[in-house]
Amino acid sequence: MKPLVSVAPRLARRMEMMQPSAVREILKVAERPDVLSFAGGLPAPELFPVEEIAAAHAEVLRSEGAYALQYSTTEGYGPLRDWISAHLTRQGIATKTNQVLITSGSQQGIDLVARIFVDPGDVVLVENPTYLAALQAFAAYEAKLVPVPSDDDGMQVEHLEELILTHRPKLIYLVTNFQNPKGTSLSMSRRRMLAHLADKHGVAVLEDDPYGELIFRGEPLPAVAALGSSNVLRISTFSKTLAPGLRIGWLSGDEALVRKVTIVKQAADLHTATLAQRATATLLRDFDLDAHMARLRSVYGQRAATMISALRTYMPAGTSWVDPSGGMFVWMQLPHGLDAEALFHQALAKQVAFVPGSAFFVDDIRRDFVRLNFSNRPPELIKEGMKRLGEVVHAAVLSPPPPMPRRAETIPPLR
Amino acid sequence: MKPLVSVAPRLARRMEMMQPSAVREILKVAERPDVLSFAGGLPAPELFPVEEIAAAHAEVLRSEGAYALQYSTTEGYGPLRDWISAHLTRQGIATKTNQVLITSGSQQGIDLVARIFVDPGDVVLVENPTYLAALQAFAAYEAKLVPVPSDDDGMQVEHLEELILTHRPKLIYLVTNFQNPKGTSLSMSRRRMLAHLADKHGVAVLEDDPYGELIFRGEPLPAVAALGSSNVLRISTFSKTLAPGLRIGWLSGDEALVRKVTIVKQAADLHTATLAQRATATLLRDFDLDAHMARLRSVYGQRAATMISALRTYMPAGTSWVDPSGGMFVWMQLPHGLDAEALFHQALAKQVAFVPGSAFFVDDIRRDFVRLNFSNRPPELIKEGMKRLGEVVHAAVLSPPPPMPRRAETIPPLR
Repeated sequence: MKPLVSVAPRLARRMEMMQPSAVREILKVAERPDVLSFAGGLPAPELFPVEEIAAAHAEVLRSEGAYALQYSTTEGYGPLRDWISAHLTRQGIATKTNQVLITSGSQQGIDLVARIFVDPGDVVLVENPTYLAALQAFAAYEAKLVPVPSDDDGMQVEHLEELILTHRPKLIYLVTNFQNPKGTSLSMSRRRMLAHLADKHGVAVLEDDPYGELIFRGEPLPAVAALGSSNVLRISTFSKTLAPGLRIGWLSGDEALVRKVTIVKQAADLHTATLAQRATATLLRDFDLDAHMARLRSVYGQRAATMISALRTYMPAGTSWVDPSGGMFVWMQLPHGLDAEALFHQALAKQVAFVPGSAFFVDDIRRDFVRLNFSNRPPELIKEGMKRLGEVVHAAVLSPPPPMPRRAETIPPLR
Repeated sequence: MKPLVSVAPRLARRMEMMQPSAVREILKVAERPDVLSFAGGLPAPELFPVEEIAAAHAEVLRSEGAYALQYSTTEGYGPLRDWISAHLTRQGIATKTNQVLITSGSQQGIDLVARIFVDPGDVVLVENPTYLAALQAFAAYEAKLVPVPSDDDGMQVEHLEELILTHRPKLIYLVTNFQNPKGTSLSMSRRRMLAHLADKHGVAVLEDDPYGELIFRGEPLPAVAALGSSNVLRISTFSKTLAPGLRIGWLSGDEALVRKVTIVKQAADLHTATLAQRATATLLRDFDLDAHMARLRSVYGQRAATMISALRTYMPAGTSWVDPSGGMFVWMQLPHGLDAEALFHQALAKQVAFVPGSAFFVDDIRRDFVRLNFSNRPPELIKEGMKRLGEVVHAAVLSPPPPMPRRAETIPPLR
């Protein structure tokens, strides 16, 4: 009965926009064992509280195994939601348990928030440059991405009202603290203006804050979600504070909106892993998270300082960078308009890797920026890596490599 | 700066179709501690291999903690994908590792497969009745659901070609073994015909098989995915064989299509939990899964037999049911066209619960069916529960309760 010709199925329209991520293709090369890579956005594995996480899993499975391995509610494990709401409230974001939804990492929070707001062709305003996987999530809903320019104080919110009136966006997406890729944070006045505009124009804001607790200099700023607008939804995660491999993130905000997201999560994956949620709640009950975070901030601060001082030592005149106060990244501008994609291949030859900044731009793609991750390598390897990279940049300044032809996978998926 | 009036954000069109599931609202009541519930679709927690799962987590965290807690690839953990591809190949579904994608439960498989195929308004052909949460997943993509009638041999595939030519569907969804809610399986001739039509007309088939390994009578039938069509994608899960709380499922099929699903999964949640994947792979390496499955099949077979014999003892004449050869459910038709939703409230008064069958229909909603779960209660409680339910049905036959007014949440989300 098999027909002579098998006809291929027809794909959804969105698949034309869903391409493998630029960074992902680059990381495949960068993660070669012989390469000293600063490309990934990985936390320091040697700081994972492995023993404490193991003890929490052992205790949960010993004392409540049948519950920890069973189906559970979409909203998430009550005691974990309690902990998160209390934690947010301590941070100035007054939150009740029923305003918290546990997600499968904060990436799922981006996907589900897009799902409740975005119809095909709807506009989402995004910082430019921004977190690449957020752009991919919005592409799945066929959003029209409109970039908002940014500077060292984050998204240029002063341009926002005009963009809102012109484009009638459904959603505004930004990373408010130690942004990926730039390491910059949104200024206080811009936070107030953003919350105000969200309320005034009925535009939802997705405040993505995975890095805020990784602050190693200065004082934290209040979350946009703490500034009184019920249109601001906030996502965060334990991926940068405890461990990414648990895939535990959360969404918080207006109860009615969080309820909408809960309904779409039910259809997306029923619920986040019961065992991981209960083990995380048990860990947080017994664990000195403050001491752990103090250690993380100190180590990441040292690594950032090491990278900045190595850049001062090894980079040629005309190279500049953002000196971050937290997070995981240094954003560096190459001298003389050097092409970072071309440089990437020169660097690989010297067994050092980074992510070309072009991958993070929605529009007005800049080719002369580089994203460097400092959290995943110890100081001595950071020095060695920046030394190698400095040699590559010096060489490129003397004889600039020809710009690479634009390859599809080096352009963000939405362009 | 806070405006006098805060304007609410506008939601996506799909939210009009995304309502809380009927079953979910019913389960909230049914899971009251004083109620003996046969409503949920829960496996038997006393059969979870808790100690073995604990040992696997302990070993993984002891020997490879830094890797098990770090970010990992979207495709999933290699050794787990190797095990699944070998397991599928042993079952007659020749599968290579790169044809397997690890998903966050098989529910995510439904969501992601819909994502690659379904544009708003596209037709998805589904068995009627079928798994409710699949209907919710398709609703998120604004699919037009067209029901295909079913009988005791599953979807009536002989009607399929006409429906394909009339509606040009993008996708055909069905549960092939011990279907939820009916407990029936697709016959061999219909499996062959389905694979043939998928190839002939270029329609993707999503074969959802969470229950196939829970067979306690007769011989398993070959998967539709084993019958030569590259248009058949198959999802399954460890939720029914190991434990649902781990949220580890998988998608398998044509490598190019699995790759498309992998790209959309990356945007949806980056990857499934690294620790849970590595612990599951370690468990499967050391664990006698065959012996575990033999025990599961024997216990579930006893529970099904106990329920069927209790129904024979306690139900009035005119009541009928499907006697399942596997899975977790008995599908019962009430006598004299009794209304199962009305009966649900009578039953609650006797502290026994079930799911009214109406929740599972896309169209031609039948009000006189009941879904009973037998996997989650020991034989003595199954007998007691069916005794109580028998009294309720007997009473209803003597004085039928007035049909309940249709409440929104008792109607499937797509109607």
